[in-house]
Amino acid sequence: MKKLIGNLMYGQSGGPTSVINASAYGVIKKARENQDIIENIYVMKHGIQGALNEEFFLIDEDYNENIELLKHTPGSAFGSVRYKLKSEEQDDSDYKKLLEVFKKYNIRYFLYNGGNDSMDTCSKIASFMKNQSYDIHIIGVPKTIDNDLPYTDHTPGFGSAAKFISNIMAEICYDMSAYPVGKVTIVEIMGRHAGWLTASSALASINGFGPDLIYLPERPFSIERFKADVKKVYDEKNHCLVAVSEGIVNELGEFVFASKEKDNFGHSQLGGVAAKLSQLIADELKISTRSVELSSSQRSASHFQSLTDVEEAISVGEKAVELAMNGHSDVMVGIHRLSNDPYQVEYEYFNLAKCANEEKKMDDDMINEEGNGVTEKFIQYALPLIQGENQPKYHLGIQKFAKIK
Amino acid sequence: MKKLIGNLMYGQSGGPTSVINASAYGVIKKARENQDIIENIYVMKHGIQGALNEEFFLIDEDYNENIELLKHTPGSAFGSVRYKLKSEEQDDSDYKKLLEVFKKYNIRYFLYNGGNDSMDTCSKIASFMKNQSYDIHIIGVPKTIDNDLPYTDHTPGFGSAAKFISNIMAEICYDMSAYPVGKVTIVEIMGRHAGWLTASSALASINGFGPDLIYLPERPFSIERFKADVKKVYDEKNHCLVAVSEGIVNELGEFVFASKEKDNFGHSQLGGVAAKLSQLIADELKISTRSVELSSSQRSASHFQSLTDVEEAISVGEKAVELAMNGHSDVMVGIHRLSNDPYQVEYEYFNLAKCANEEKKMDDDMINEEGNGVTEKFIQYALPLIQGENQPKYHLGIQKFAKIK
Repeated sequence: MKKLIGNLMYGQSGGPTSVINASAYGVIKKARENQDIIENIYVMKHGIQGALNEEFFLIDEDYNENIELLKHTPGSAFGSVRYKLKSEEQDDSDYKKLLEVFKKYNIRYFLYNGGNDSMDTCSKIASFMKNQSYDIHIIGVPKTIDNDLPYTDHTPGFGSAAKFISNIMAEICYDMSAYPVGKVTIVEIMGRHAGWLTASSALASINGFGPDLIYLPERPFSIERFKADVKKVYDEKNHCLVAVSEGIVNELGEFVFASKEKDNFGHSQLGGVAAKLSQLIADELKISTRSVELSSSQRSASHFQSLTDVEEAISVGEKAVELAMNGHSDVMVGIHRLSNDPYQVEYEYFNLAKCANEEKKMDDDMINEEGNGVTEKFIQYALPLIQGENQPKYHLGIQKFAKIK
Repeated sequence: MKKLIGNLMYGQSGGPTSVINASAYGVIKKARENQDIIENIYVMKHGIQGALNEEFFLIDEDYNENIELLKHTPGSAFGSVRYKLKSEEQDDSDYKKLLEVFKKYNIRYFLYNGGNDSMDTCSKIASFMKNQSYDIHIIGVPKTIDNDLPYTDHTPGFGSAAKFISNIMAEICYDMSAYPVGKVTIVEIMGRHAGWLTASSALASINGFGPDLIYLPERPFSIERFKADVKKVYDEKNHCLVAVSEGIVNELGEFVFASKEKDNFGHSQLGGVAAKLSQLIADELKISTRSVELSSSQRSASHFQSLTDVEEAISVGEKAVELAMNGHSDVMVGIHRLSNDPYQVEYEYFNLAKCANEEKKMDDDMINEEGNGVTEKFIQYALPLIQGENQPKYHLGIQKFAKIK
């Protein structure tokens, strides 16, 4: 098969993970190994917005030291964006502009690194370019701490977030057990519709110090049951550690506590669940409480990367380039788990439209009957993903990150 | 000089730090090296409460593996307490009970590990025992993340908290710079009356990614100046990262945002400052905001211990035993800095009553003129304290902590 010769364009979109830059590293490394096919690497500044505005980083040798640092740099080193492409029928001006840019820079490989919404963007671009008979290979590179992309066994970014969450939970558990009269500590964890991250707090218990109760968006949340659960644990242990998802919903499927504000994609703004539940316990059970939000560190705590996750994030970047060079397009790279012991995976791919805007929730049998904890099946699923401790690069006691100018 | 032969009692009090157990390790190690003088080691369960209730851990060989783990275990492994001893004049029953317990267990060395309030407890006990002519050596072992104990150059626990805060701030800074239209991110940091911890966020900037504005309890906080500062940074950079102390006060010295609740020592409950300032910026400047509370991880993030801090925490424990064996009593161990480059310290001691209930604030020339940042003097002071990365012990991807039964 004759390979398309031309340039590659890569971009990052949506919320960062602590390993999205490791995928960028994988893309750049693999592309550089194939300079007979991929001549130049353009990285979009702020994702698709950079493509539309012709704002790129042309990756040359000046970046070498910083490319190495990408493996352990949080955030989106090249800038991210939350930009929703209108459908072609509504307004095709962005698509036409992209086609013009692709032609101008001879872009034949387009790799977009993101979550559900980004796969939607990718799929729409692929469809337009196909209709215009512009020869380009478009591949989605998955990332999301939420682990809610479908088809793939799990998503790069999840393992590191899970490692951060579970280790912080172990520390909080140990810390809160210090006093003779304890508190109810309620920790709020990210995850809009899927409980993967909140569930991962259970991994803390592997070494004896973890949450007592876990509440996930997959099961309707009852305030009365919650109060009864907390009271039972507290009466027995004199303290209680709760992990709760920001996305818990009531029997009607409505967020238990959500503000009215919406983001660019029409998603409700969440947050404040732990504080509200803490107030409730303090008021009604008259127990001292503390609420903790793990907040944006869940996606940015690069110092707690899982080595397994870093390696897989690099691999999905590399595989995306390989798939593109092998003539694939309109697909997202996915991870297929071959075995748990030893943990082995292979990489596969799925149609982009299938992956876009579909959210993968936890399997029903990963959640316990009471709806306040996880099962052994979840532990076996998640445990391999947090293995391996990464050693960040430090300068004067502070982590060194890539500087992309 | 003839040395007192007898048993040693050690306890932990007040809020944990991520290295208070390293001091416990130092005490136990040094006591074991001197078994001709110190026959048994009793560790109080929940500090002074354990002494009063005769609840101890008798440290024997069964604890060996867990004693090693103490160096990297957060929280208070033996339990802590916030128990305020009444003055002798008010009620001397606790003192009499302690004397009875000391006699019963032949306690000749009493080491208490804590902050300001704990030094007060220690000082009162020393005074009573002296008046009763009970021969005992009482030494305060300093710990507090707040770094507000007087006389000592700095306090074990501060360096690790500062390392956690500054590295998390670097990650947050990198993460928040991802979007073309940024937010104002306001991070709330512990420190009731002293700004040491909040100031330490400035160390993040060493590698290029740190806070834009820092507000400390040492300078009166003006909401109008704050809004103007934020607007100026945001207009220039399109995002703004603020570090703010939970203990900021207005011109009258009143907490800017404090609830009415008080703890056992009569201290106001703080918290929620970042959330309230975020709301203010969102409402009045119409800029999107995020508030982050670093919360209890500041004292429990053992995975981010500074190696310098761990070594010093062990040393103050060892020095406390040495001082006691050399006939000292009624003193707190302190750290005296000899030089910054190379960083060198020696250990000294101070009268307990002098240390009790006095809080050390930041030097005036460590804070910039505008009152929204720190000076080079602070950086030079704090930087050596965060040096050295500790390698936590992991089992299955989760940190292993000491299990004291």
